[in-house]
Amino acid sequence: MSLGIQYISAAYDRISPFIHKTPLIRSKEIDKLCGCEIIFKADNFQKVGAFKARGACNAIMSMEEERLRRGVITHSSGNHGAALAWAAAMKKTDCIVVMPKNASAVKVDAVNCYGGTVLFCEPTMCAREMMVQDFVSKQCSQFIHPFDDYSVIAGQGTIAVEFASQLDGLLDKILVPVGGGGLISGISVFVKDKGGLASQVIGTEPEKARDAADSFYSGIHVKDYEPKTMADGLRATLGVKNFEIISNNVDDFALASEAQIVEATKLIWSRLKVLVEPSAAVPLAAILNNPNYFRGQRIGIILSGGNIDLDNLPW
Amino acid sequence: MSLGIQYISAAYDRISPFIHKTPLIRSKEIDKLCGCEIIFKADNFQKVGAFKARGACNAIMSMEEERLRRGVITHSSGNHGAALAWAAAMKKTDCIVVMPKNASAVKVDAVNCYGGTVLFCEPTMCAREMMVQDFVSKQCSQFIHPFDDYSVIAGQGTIAVEFASQLDGLLDKILVPVGGGGLISGISVFVKDKGGLASQVIGTEPEKARDAADSFYSGIHVKDYEPKTMADGLRATLGVKNFEIISNNVDDFALASEAQIVEATKLIWSRLKVLVEPSAAVPLAAILNNPNYFRGQRIGIILSGGNIDLDNLPW
Repeated sequence: MSLGIQYISAAYDRISPFIHKTPLIRSKEIDKLCGCEIIFKADNFQKVGAFKARGACNAIMSMEEERLRRGVITHSSGNHGAALAWAAAMKKTDCIVVMPKNASAVKVDAVNCYGGTVLFCEPTMCAREMMVQDFVSKQCSQFIHPFDDYSVIAGQGTIAVEFASQLDGLLDKILVPVGGGGLISGISVFVKDKGGLASQVIGTEPEKARDAADSFYSGIHVKDYEPKTMADGLRATLGVKNFEIISNNVDDFALASEAQIVEATKLIWSRLKVLVEPSAAVPLAAILNNPNYFRGQRIGIILSGGNIDLDNLPW
Repeated sequence: MSLGIQYISAAYDRISPFIHKTPLIRSKEIDKLCGCEIIFKADNFQKVGAFKARGACNAIMSMEEERLRRGVITHSSGNHGAALAWAAAMKKTDCIVVMPKNASAVKVDAVNCYGGTVLFCEPTMCAREMMVQDFVSKQCSQFIHPFDDYSVIAGQGTIAVEFASQLDGLLDKILVPVGGGGLISGISVFVKDKGGLASQVIGTEPEKARDAADSFYSGIHVKDYEPKTMADGLRATLGVKNFEIISNNVDDFALASEAQIVEATKLIWSRLKVLVEPSAAVPLAAILNNPNYFRGQRIGIILSGGNIDLDNLPW
């Protein structure tokens, strides 16, 4: 399986009837504050409120009918579970989402709302994977990994196809939040395979969830890592396929503190008047942390999602 | 001076180079919950984050250069002050905003940010008006009332011109939040003068700031009223010109409790992923309060503004 621009463009053709073409937004005040020109791609307005709809949709729409009839399963504490439930419902197939029993009520409700079935497990990665494996072997359901999966990666990469088609000219840098690495894998393959969009692809992470940055710089896949950030969408650790793709295609990483993530979230809310979750504010937070690195440049930022518990804001 | 559709259309031609054409947004989940089809006009994305930019811009752009050179003044505890400062800056003229000394820091900062000068007064309507009058008589500045002014009303009415041009067919009802009455005056004149948009114009108010509804139903202008609502944009009491226009052109009023305003604000944030202030959520709150009155209909809602202090949310 070789991931390239044609594979991602085919994914875009496959999913575009089902997803929103999300808008680009700007703020003069944020540009002034940051000393650069920032174009935000607002995928918080995407179906299920996050870019995850793209990857889940591509995975489901790529499956053969025969396989699809046996249902799909995933593990997720966040947006991928809701996205898979949404996509599976369009194909009228069952979707099971294994969630840690301490998952937030808002995220559990979202899966239920789209018609998925939630199974609770102990809050460890091992417990999640065992429960999924058990189900797959008994029911023959198809496991759709949240990020370590080529069809999911290609689906996430469709945001780059769309963003490039909405822009005149190239960005200097595209900044992407990194959790398990699905989104940046798709985008960086598109960019490095001459898809356009940007000269450089920069991964951004909370300082307290910097396993991808550490893996990128050391060349060794950091797996034994416990992320401790408020950006709950970025608490996954880097996948195997994702580590390989990032090593080959990403240009650099930039980090941000928890305080800068709060500041950036509030800036986006108050200046752009759009609701994003803290994970989506990490790229802007990374600019606040490294202003000289970005000064005077034309920057693209992916607003990755807008699902946040309004009764438990991180400030 | 006779306010009519031509006057409002002329205002739209005058201000459209300076304002944003704001998008329409929808949510299937909100439609399902409310049992009707709701189309939101997102003027929280307007310049200065509120529809007030329309009225202030029309007032400023309608003034003769000679008059304009002497500067403008207003009193405001909210978005009109920032909007007038923004519009005045485009014409490079001075703008003074008299604000109660207990005005929120966020609103004071906004006026300063657009280059206006804030003068503080005691937090009574009488103190505000006296300070303005004093200034007008000494400096010959032009007073631009926040809502009891035909050029401001016509400017606010431009949202109806724009909304109608974006829609296929008529709405059954257009729901408008009412404070001093500038917005609903402009919209209701446009609709009743055969501008299209909607069959009926419905004013919406917090139950704790129901002076316009009481005035409308009784036919007597209620002036001695102390609004006590979290919807700070609706704490003004109905203007004189506004009372007359509303009496002649509005079809009905609908009210909402404070709890419903919180519920509606959260619904808009979480489902539409856009940031609105509580005042902008009052129309949706009024639907939650009167579901049968709106069931099955095609409803338009003006999202009037998105300026809110994120460190002092009303929940």
